This record gives sequence, structure tokens and C-alpha cells, in this order.
Amino acid sequence: MPHSAAAFRPSPALDVAVIAREAFAASVFETLRADSADGRGVTRTSYMAGEQRAHDRIAALARDLGLAVSVDAAGNLAARFAGGRPDLPAWIVGSHLDSVHIGGNFDGAAGVIAGLTVIAAMIDAGIRPERDIVLMAFRAEESSTWFVGCHGGHLGSRAALGLLWEGELDSAIHVATGRPLRAMMSEAGFDPARIEAGPPILSPADYAGYVELHIEQGPILEHRAIPVGIVTGIRGAYRARNARALGAWSHSGAVPHEYRQDAVFAMADLVMALDGEWARRRAGGEDLVVTVGKFATEADRHSLTKVPGQVDFALDIRSQSRATLDGMEAFLRDQARRIEAQRGVVFTLDPFDRSMPSLMAPELVSALQAGAEGLGIPVLTMASGGGHDAQDFADAGIPAAMIFVRNDKGSHNPDEAMEIADFMQATRVLANVLSGVAGVE
Amino acid sequence: MPHSAAAFRPSPALDVAVIAREAFAASVFETLRADSADGRGVTRTSYMAGEQRAHDRIAALARDLGLAVSVDAAGNLAARFAGGRPDLPAWIVGSHLDSVHIGGNFDGAAGVIAGLTVIAAMIDAGIRPERDIVLMAFRAEESSTWFVGCHGGHLGSRAALGLLWEGELDSAIHVATGRPLRAMMSEAGFDPARIEAGPPILSPADYAGYVELHIEQGPILEHRAIPVGIVTGIRGAYRARNARALGAWSHSGAVPHEYRQDAVFAMADLVMALDGEWARRRAGGEDLVVTVGKFATEADRHSLTKVPGQVDFALDIRSQSRATLDGMEAFLRDQARRIEAQRGVVFTLDPFDRSMPSLMAPELVSALQAGAEGLGIPVLTMASGGGHDAQDFADAGIPAAMIFVRNDKGSHNPDEAMEIADFMQATRVLANVLSGVAGVE
Repeated sequence: MPHSAAAFRPSPALDVAVIAREAFAASVFETLRADSADGRGVTRTSYMAGEQRAHDRIAALARDLGLAVSVDAAGNLAARFAGGRPDLPAWIVGSHLDSVHIGGNFDGAAGVIAGLTVIAAMIDAGIRPERDIVLMAFRAEESSTWFVGCHGGHLGSRAALGLLWEGELDSAIHVATGRPLRAMMSEAGFDPARIEAGPPILSPADYAGYVELHIEQGPILEHRAIPVGIVTGIRGAYRARNARALGAWSHSGAVPHEYRQDAVFAMADLVMALDGEWARRRAGGEDLVVTVGKFATEADRHSLTKVPGQVDFALDIRSQSRATLDGMEAFLRDQARRIEAQRGVVFTLDPFDRSMPSLMAPELVSALQAGAEGLGIPVLTMASGGGHDAQDFADAGIPAAMIFVRNDKGSHNPDEAMEIADFMQATRVLANVLSGVAGVE
Repeated sequence: MPHSAAAFRPSPALDVAVIAREAFAASVFETLRADSADGRGVTRTSYMAGEQRAHDRIAALARDLGLAVSVDAAGNLAARFAGGRPDLPAWIVGSHLDSVHIGGNFDGAAGVIAGLTVIAAMIDAGIRPERDIVLMAFRAEESSTWFVGCHGGHLGSRAALGLLWEGELDSAIHVATGRPLRAMMSEAGFDPARIEAGPPILSPADYAGYVELHIEQGPILEHRAIPVGIVTGIRGAYRARNARALGAWSHSGAVPHEYRQDAVFAMADLVMALDGEWARRRAGGEDLVVTVGKFATEADRHSLTKVPGQVDFALDIRSQSRATLDGMEAFLRDQARRIEAQRGVVFTLDPFDRSMPSLMAPELVSALQAGAEGLGIPVLTMASGGGHDAQDFADAGIPAAMIFVRNDKGSHNPDEAMEIADFMQATRVLANVLSGVAGVE
């Protein structure tokens, strides 16, 4: 870090210039929306035409600002605002431009438009940072939706950071085309062989840090009436995607309690055990959410008059703390054993996926908090429950930070309801921290 | 009752004659099986050809024994073994001859074959009772399977006893033909107008009682290694067939506990509350079974990463005690209100169906117990969890009793596993009680 948080002084000239760019930012949102409207929301499919149109728009706007535009081997867009000291590691600001199927206009795009707005404002104000600031728009952040057979989402940023898994270029299959990631990249004009050969396109030697603005995917800022969130970390997730409780089918009237192997009662017991442990850990201040997203007796076998012999379920446990996740997994397995013994069922919890928490850089969290305070903008310090490109930077060893914008209706749906006034407050916080870390004199 | 239980003396001649009819009974089972084999089990569809073939076989065998055979307005078969005192109310012995789709050969047929075997043995032994003994084979006992829009099963016995509901002849629609019960009866040559006009075909003035042998539908006799059960009552059932917990869908990672309206956690809470209350009442000696036969998040909406906003479920609470059923319903509704307040969901429990318990006649239970003891046959006194024609006799005010035969693999499936040796022990108990109540000198 070239500057400590305490040394930050808000730049009134930059702040005025950011505020003056509100209409510009709003117009870019409307342009992207018009390009990808699907009748109900927007659809910007990863590695397909909807995403590409958004990349083309942002590239054109960046060129209009005089930035040097390039596209990497994974198709990620980079627009470089040159600083005075090209020998120093640069900063990256950005997010992604793809959306889910019939999604909202703000998830992803907000972070790219915020970065573009900050650079435009710096240019407007005649501010040139010491370090280069690179606006990036990543491909395929929504790859959990658009691909099967990938190891988590964010294929674009992971490809650039050298974080694809062995074989993932071929195992990740696009749901719209049935073709693997490698083919999707090649046919769009990119270079999967370069990604496979390495080294990573983005390395810690070249980049000092990454800052991403994103709409909040949950309701916390809305409920607390605070416009901006400062993210402390992105929760890891321990997951049983295709779990099962297997008991025995029997007659609902004729079989007494002692001869039942009731999969529904066994699962309810497990859920309530998790509910109790979750409450205990919440009371102790631990960051934790627990979700049983699926709990289903078989539609072609269940009936009013049968004791259910099988429940299929999904379990998603998330926390910023690996210790909490490990503790919950141990608790889960202990309880499963207890219930198996008590209720005559067998639980299948494996394969059990574990994605680790990614902490945002503490010094950047402090810088964001101090900057917001200096600007008089109320913020809430909070965890991110969803995954973001920022976690891949953290995982790759590049300091990362995230700013959340209040958003009423959740993400991944046409009702995403970010207010442009909230977006501008968050963008002012983003401009402030970038001017600090990139070295504005 | 013409005789008290204490007055019963086993008739060694009759018992020997029953035992000698084992091969006959086994051959009737095999004839019915061969007539209705469907490749995996047997299918004897109510009011259709499979059921009719079984009725024709039993009628022919009854005529061979010299019995007077008739068919009532609902298609139920009656074969009368005339006693010495036609002025006295008669006894009925029997069960049903239909099966579920791909069912087993013993559910229903065992009771008819047992009655036929007892009468044959009486004839073999030269025993003539005071009172007439009428072997009956009822139609459509499996109408919960074969009809929709009926108020419970047992359409054949309910039709004969005047227990059809207003409009049920037209509301009950056969699933194989789409035609109402009235048309199914008419087209098979029976007389629904006679049933509608009344009075009941079978009335308490004409009949002293009803005894039914049936395979146990649960595993209790098998687990306890006892061949024969004496039924104390048929459980009533309080049911929510199409119940729902409605919460709100949200993001599994981004939404904290306090903003969730999680339908799965709410339902698990309700199930565990019922589990605790069931345990409490069991410990207090109450007869009770509780089943959540369906517990399903929506297949087209649930996912690993969504907090479920809806659970559809079915609830079946059964007991021999109306007080227990009423107590459980009150508990259920209290708990639903508690959970609604605590977890932000809304339960829909209605329409809530209530079928009342039917107690078997205590003096017949005592007579069966005493008779079995006299024969040295071990019996277990137990509740029936499933519904049977016997409950309609009890509901109509005709004293009723049931004898269960051990059966390993449950009922309503091709794996029903009644041993002929167990059937013969139960049939000996049946012969003994019939000879007692019908007045064998």
C-alpha cells in the first residue's frame, strides 16, 4: 500500500466530478438494458451475443475516454487509464457484464459502470493517478447458471488469474449450446490454449489490488436503511448438493413407531439440530447461514398413506470463518450418526463440496470505511453471502475489496431495484479509495 | 349374544375339519391368483373384470357346497349357510375380493376364503349352527385406490349398509374408466337406484354380527413372531391431504437468519413438535401413529442456493381414540400458530378430513381371545391401522370383529407374504368363534 488509511484525504474536486457524471452513468445502464432486454428482464448470456454486446458498448465508451482497450485470452475486457508511474503495480476496478437468464440490469454491470464513471470523473477533474487504473469487465461470472461441470462460478476471472481447475476447459459445458468452455472461448475469438499453457494473465507482481462495486444480493442494506455496504469477506460454502436420507417405505396406519424408518422425521430431526446449532453460533457472534434448499419426498412414490422411505435434500452452509464451517460440518456428521442410530435411516452427505471463505484485505476495508466517513456517506460493514470475482483476486493473492449498493428485490431476477442515488454514493466511495490507493497527489 | 365368552367350548370335531381343509383353501388362493395374475402381482380392479372373475369363482365354490348364492344391488356376493333357526339374526363372515393395481393375492381374498373354509368344514363335520352364517364378498373395498371423489374406501360394504354419502354414487369416479360409481354399478348389472332409495340392504335387525379375517398390513405380528392378531379397533384418521407451508424465496448465502421466511425450517419445526407430542402420548399409553407422507419443495423452483419459500405436505394422524385425535389436532393447530409467529410462514392445513375410530365389539374380542387360548394358538391383541369393511359394520351398529394373519411384507404390493400355516391358525380361531356365536350345540 502506498498510503495508509489514516493518510487519506477526500479529494473534493474528484467527488464533485463523480457527482457530475450521474447522468452519464444512468445512460450507460439504460444502453445496456436496451441492448439485452428480453421482454421481462435482461439476458446477457456468458460467452454469447448478449454478453458480447455489453462488452462492445463498454469498450467503445472506454475508447471515447481515451483509454487503451484490450481483450485477454479469456475474453475479459481491460481498459487502462495510464498513471504517471507505469513501473508500479496497477489497480484494477471492475466486475462482470453477463447476467442470468431473465436477470436484472444491475448485477455485474453496476461494478463496470462505476469503474468507468470514476475514470471519466478523474479525467474530467484533470486528475492523473501515480498508478495505472485498469477497468476490467469479466466474462462468465454467472457460470454457475450458464455452465454445468465447472468448479464454482466466475470462469472469466478464474481463467485470467490461473484458477481454473485441471480439465475445467473441457468439463464445463455451456447449457445453451452443449459445447465446452474451450469451444465457447475459441469460437468467440479467444485463446483457451494460452490460458491452459499459463502463466496467469493477471499476477500479483503486476497488480496492487482489486476493487469491485456490486449490488447487494440480500436485503440487509434495505432493511437497515443504509445505502452502501463495505464487504469484510465472501463467505465460503460447505455443501451437500445431492444428499439423501434413506429409510424404509411402510403403511402410515399399520406400522407403529418402533418399526418405522421414517426418512421425513429423520430429516426434520437433522434440520432442527442444525437450526439449534446455528442459533447457538449466532448468539456467539459467528457469521453463519444454513439453508436446506431442497427437501423432497419422491413425487412418484410418496402418498398420504405411506411412511416415506426416502428424502432427497440439498444443504448449503456458508460463513466467512473456516473454523465455523469446519465446526458445522463436524456437528452435521455427528448429528447424522445420532439420528441414523435413533431412527433407522442412512444419510448420504457426500460428495461434500467445500469452498473456502475469501477475506477482503483488512487495510482496504479500513480505507473504504475511512473514506465513506470522510464523505459523510453511511455504510454498513458486512459479509457477502454470494460469490464474486473479488474472491478470486483474494484467492490469487491480490488484495481485494468490495463495495455493496443497496438493492431491494434481491439479484438474479428482473425486479432488482438499485436506486441510481445509492449507486452514486457507492461510486463516490469507490472513487475516493481508488484515488487514495492509486496515488492522487 | 347367544353365548357369553366364558361359555365357549372348542369343538374338536370342527377344528379337525378346518385343519383338513388346508389343501382346499390353498387351492382357492391359487385359483384366484391364476385368474388375476398381471405379471408382477395380481390386479382385481373394483367393478371390473378382475374382481368379477374372483366373485364368479367364489360363487361357484359356494354353490358346490350347497349354499344359497345371491348378489345384492351393489354387486356384493352373499352365500347363505342355513341354520336351524332362520327366525334369529344371522352372522356374516367375509371380506373383499378386489385388489389394488399390481397388488398381492391375500389382501381381502384371505377373509373370503377363510369364511368359505369354515362353512365347508362345518358341512364336512356335519355341524349345523342355530343361526344362518352368510359368507359375503364385498365389492370395491380398495376404492381409495380405484375411485376419486369418494368419501373414504369400502364403497361396496358402505353401499350395502346405507353408509354412502349424499351424492357419492355420482361424485365417486372410477380411475380406469372415468365413469361414476352409479354407471359402474349399472353397467355391471347391479342396481344403484335401489341403494339410493334405501332402506339399507344389511340392517342390524337382520344380523347379529360380522367377523372378518384379514392379513395384517403392518409388521407387528412378524416382528413379535405371533401368527394371529385380535383387533380391538380400527383407527380413525385425521388428515391434511394437501397442506402447505408458505414462506418467501430468498438467497441462501446473502439473506441472514432474521430476514428469512424459510418454509423447510418451519415445516421441520412442525414435524419435530409432532414427534415430541407423539412420544409423550405413546409414553402415556395412547394409541397413535403420525405420518408426514409428503414433504416436498417444488421441483421446478427449489435449488441448492435458494431459501425455500414453499413446502407442500400431507399429514395422516391415526388413533383408536377420538380424544387422542382431537388432542393431536388441537396441538397441531397451536404449534402451527407458534411457528407462523416465530418463522414468518403461513400454514394451510385445511381441508382437514376427520374419519372416526371404529371399535370392535368388546364381547367378540373377548370371545376370540378365549377361543384362541382354548385352541392353544398364540394371539396378539392390537389396533388396525388400515381401514376395513368391518369398520362399516361397527359404524352401522352391527357388532364387528376382526382377526389378523401375520404377513411379512406389508399389503398392497406383490410381495405380500402370508404363510398358509398362519392362515390356517387364524381360520381355526374364526371357526371357533363362529361356532360359538352362531350356536353350535
